Amino acid sequence: MFRNSFPRLEPVSPDGLATIERGWMRLVSEICVRFDHPDAVQILVDAGQRAEGDIVFFDPEWVLEQVAKVPSEFTLRARNAANDIQIGGDQMVFLPVQGPPFVRRGLERRDGTLADFDDFCRLAQALPDFDLVGSLPCEPNDIPLDSRHLDMVRSIAMLTDKPLGGGAVSVDAAEDALAMARIIFGDRMDREVCVYTNINVNSPLVYDGRMLDALMIYARVGQPVFIVPFLLMGAMAPASTISALAQQFAEALTGIALMQAINPGCPAVLGSFLSTTDMKNGSPAFGGPESHFGLLVSGQLARRYKLPWRAGGGSLTTSPVPDAQAAYEGMNTMQAAFLAGANIVMHTGGWLEGGLVASFEKLIVDLDIVRTLRAEFTQLDINDDALAFRAHDEVRHGGHFLGAEHTMERFRDCFYRPQLATTENFQRWSKNGGLDAAARATGIYEGLLAEYEQPPMADAMRDELDEYVSRRRTELGD
Amino acid sequence: MFRNSFPRLEPVSPDGLATIERGWMRLVSEICVRFDHPDAVQILVDAGQRAEGDIVFFDPEWVLEQVAKVPSEFTLRARNAANDIQIGGDQMVFLPVQGPPFVRRGLERRDGTLADFDDFCRLAQALPDFDLVGSLPCEPNDIPLDSRHLDMVRSIAMLTDKPLGGGAVSVDAAEDALAMARIIFGDRMDREVCVYTNINVNSPLVYDGRMLDALMIYARVGQPVFIVPFLLMGAMAPASTISALAQQFAEALTGIALMQAINPGCPAVLGSFLSTTDMKNGSPAFGGPESHFGLLVSGQLARRYKLPWRAGGGSLTTSPVPDAQAAYEGMNTMQAAFLAGANIVMHTGGWLEGGLVASFEKLIVDLDIVRTLRAEFTQLDINDDALAFRAHDEVRHGGHFLGAEHTMERFRDCFYRPQLATTENFQRWSKNGGLDAAARATGIYEGLLAEYEQPPMADAMRDELDEYVSRRRTELGD
Repeated sequence: MFRNSFPRLEPVSPDGLATIERGWMRLVSEICVRFDHPDAVQILVDAGQRAEGDIVFFDPEWVLEQVAKVPSEFTLRARNAANDIQIGGDQMVFLPVQGPPFVRRGLERRDGTLADFDDFCRLAQALPDFDLVGSLPCEPNDIPLDSRHLDMVRSIAMLTDKPLGGGAVSVDAAEDALAMARIIFGDRMDREVCVYTNINVNSPLVYDGRMLDALMIYARVGQPVFIVPFLLMGAMAPASTISALAQQFAEALTGIALMQAINPGCPAVLGSFLSTTDMKNGSPAFGGPESHFGLLVSGQLARRYKLPWRAGGGSLTTSPVPDAQAAYEGMNTMQAAFLAGANIVMHTGGWLEGGLVASFEKLIVDLDIVRTLRAEFTQLDINDDALAFRAHDEVRHGGHFLGAEHTMERFRDCFYRPQLATTENFQRWSKNGGLDAAARATGIYEGLLAEYEQPPMADAMRDELDEYVSRRRTELGD
Repeated sequence: MFRNSFPRLEPVSPDGLATIERGWMRLVSEICVRFDHPDAVQILVDAGQRAEGDIVFFDPEWVLEQVAKVPSEFTLRARNAANDIQIGGDQMVFLPVQGPPFVRRGLERRDGTLADFDDFCRLAQALPDFDLVGSLPCEPNDIPLDSRHLDMVRSIAMLTDKPLGGGAVSVDAAEDALAMARIIFGDRMDREVCVYTNINVNSPLVYDGRMLDALMIYARVGQPVFIVPFLLMGAMAPASTISALAQQFAEALTGIALMQAINPGCPAVLGSFLSTTDMKNGSPAFGGPESHFGLLVSGQLARRYKLPWRAGGGSLTTSPVPDAQAAYEGMNTMQAAFLAGANIVMHTGGWLEGGLVASFEKLIVDLDIVRTLRAEFTQLDINDDALAFRAHDEVRHGGHFLGAEHTMERFRDCFYRPQLATTENFQRWSKNGGLDAAARATGIYEGLLAEYEQPPMADAMRDELDEYVSRRRTELGD
């Protein structure tokens, strides 16, 4: 697992943080939050909050008391214990893009399929850079909607032996994910963290019924929910980064408080996903300075509240293709996730077109980005050995270190080595086809898929999963 | 001018810094530095240092005493006073790529020409993002070598009214640049900082004769030299970032000390340019984690010594084309320059192929990168106005901020707006030609060149410059 041993970049002063904190407190107590589910409202009223219909007026101090019950770190189990991950603290975990309906492979852009979904599972399994594949690397549009969640969990469980992500789009999706996790983990489910889900707030300041169903179902059994306000400023939040940050905390913290009211001590993750609307055309924009700042400040406040937190991205971009724009926007948001010390970096690989497209080539671009950053945010040992005085003594003035003994001893691993980036000179690069990074990426992911090996699973477990999926598919009418 | 109001990212502890400091002190006193110019050796001996032939043994404390004489900030004048720039402190100045022999325009890659050189001058003049064009945005290979420096200074002086960069490749180049600056600035040259040059150390631990000529010529008249060890680890420095940093300071600080021995208080700039060698093929590599770390630590030590300092890059990459690799490597080094608070960011626009190519399209890519970062590293006001409570009060739960009064009041400039990056949806982007960022960049720089207006210059000054160039060209035999 990656530990970010760098200092955090914290641009906002304690006074500034206090202002943002005052902002969310005023929102939850004066504008309040709407919960489109009577059970959720009742739970909050029973816990002492005031409601008018579906609008809940929060006491900010009560919210903070609930937030204080959230474990600041927890272990998310994998069916292969070597792939357990620790969430919180200095740890950072990475997973590919989540949610796109479309897929781009080479020059083809089309609806995502289960075959694509499975290929993302295979890549996330094969690549140590990914700690898990998540719950939805792309939408498998070619299989029936009502039972699709069953196939997705099965693919994740069989094609990877990394932690499981479950669905949240319906009661069925949530309950089936938990049931399938129980097939894998047995009664460890009652004591350990074995499956998570991710929900978005229906911003501004609304939790819709489906998301609340999932939140309550996971919370009751002590499994974590990542609660993520998805805020495009100018659309779902005011045209002010500071205001949007206050809103983000108002939304996320009240949801986390609801989880604690249901099951005190239940693990939960604060989500941050803040970007802008392009005011020329009303389109979402990603990868700009506002997202970067939003992540830095989210980290500052998450640490104040001792909450594990998720960065929206990841390698975000509005670009439709894995070009220069995709790369500098992606590097910019990914760099922010590292500077801010995000614990979970979703959308680390493959995001294009504002999240509408999961791109295999972009995933390979993003691998170079995340590998660069993982090396970059790792402290070097600074000691006499690192000073390498004897290398200077050997080479002296105007000499060359390439053949030096000191270099020979360490040339294999002394520097970061990219996978995609070329250092070939122009002549050699031209002779090798003159391919840009996106074109070179195709061969890399195809090679990874060709070499993929499915992790073993006991026959009994596989049979039980298959039987569950088959039975439930029939019950769901697909 | 841009002020970087963010906190600096400082990964190295005081103990770690002390180790690196001990490293350079040991290098300058035990391995020592070679000066391939008897005048330079004599000046250092006269100042109390010991020499054996061309090898100078430094007293590190003496070096630090000299370094303490360097102004921590100074103003570099422009012929248009509105374009004066302040170097040091929180200021950051930006200039395009320097030095490439080749140029890439669209799909064409060829020798650079004076016409290309002039176009870079025009872009640096037209774009407020660039504080100056530097001395050599590309090599004008189509004009005679011996008098080329005259044409370059004339182009910079006539096509821009931003600060002047002069050459350092020969005594003639240095003296002619100073003479031409005197035509423009008159006797202000005796009191003010009116032209700079940039020299590279012949690493490891050698100053060659030509660079020393330039250093001594500029220092005698109180004009600044950027002293830049260009360190590819594994080639000109050991395969250890910590060791290379010690070497960088050993080299740069002794050169700065020589300048102070010549002219105490002469402005000088510490340079940092540290990257790796790809050990597979011996090629230089740019844009990776080692460069990022090198810049952060260079900033930490430069601040300890109260020195203005230059970041090598800028937007560095090994890629031959302005593709995803070029963009993520470029964003990575540029981000480091901001995190480290570099005062001068050379190679901000156009660098490709490890610095062998000046690319017009890449310059447009880099503009989006530097504009993103300038917005990103600018503190936001955090107050009740920014909290925008009334916007929430207007929109309430589940509403939309796009038409809100608060948004309408500020939609024109509330968010960063990129020039190159598209937010068009896939259908519109496809209808508009489906161009990637590099392809879109061509039209942007062509448009900028078409709209360029040459800044006015008094006839007498132009005539004097022309006469000087004409006379000196004859004297130089071209």
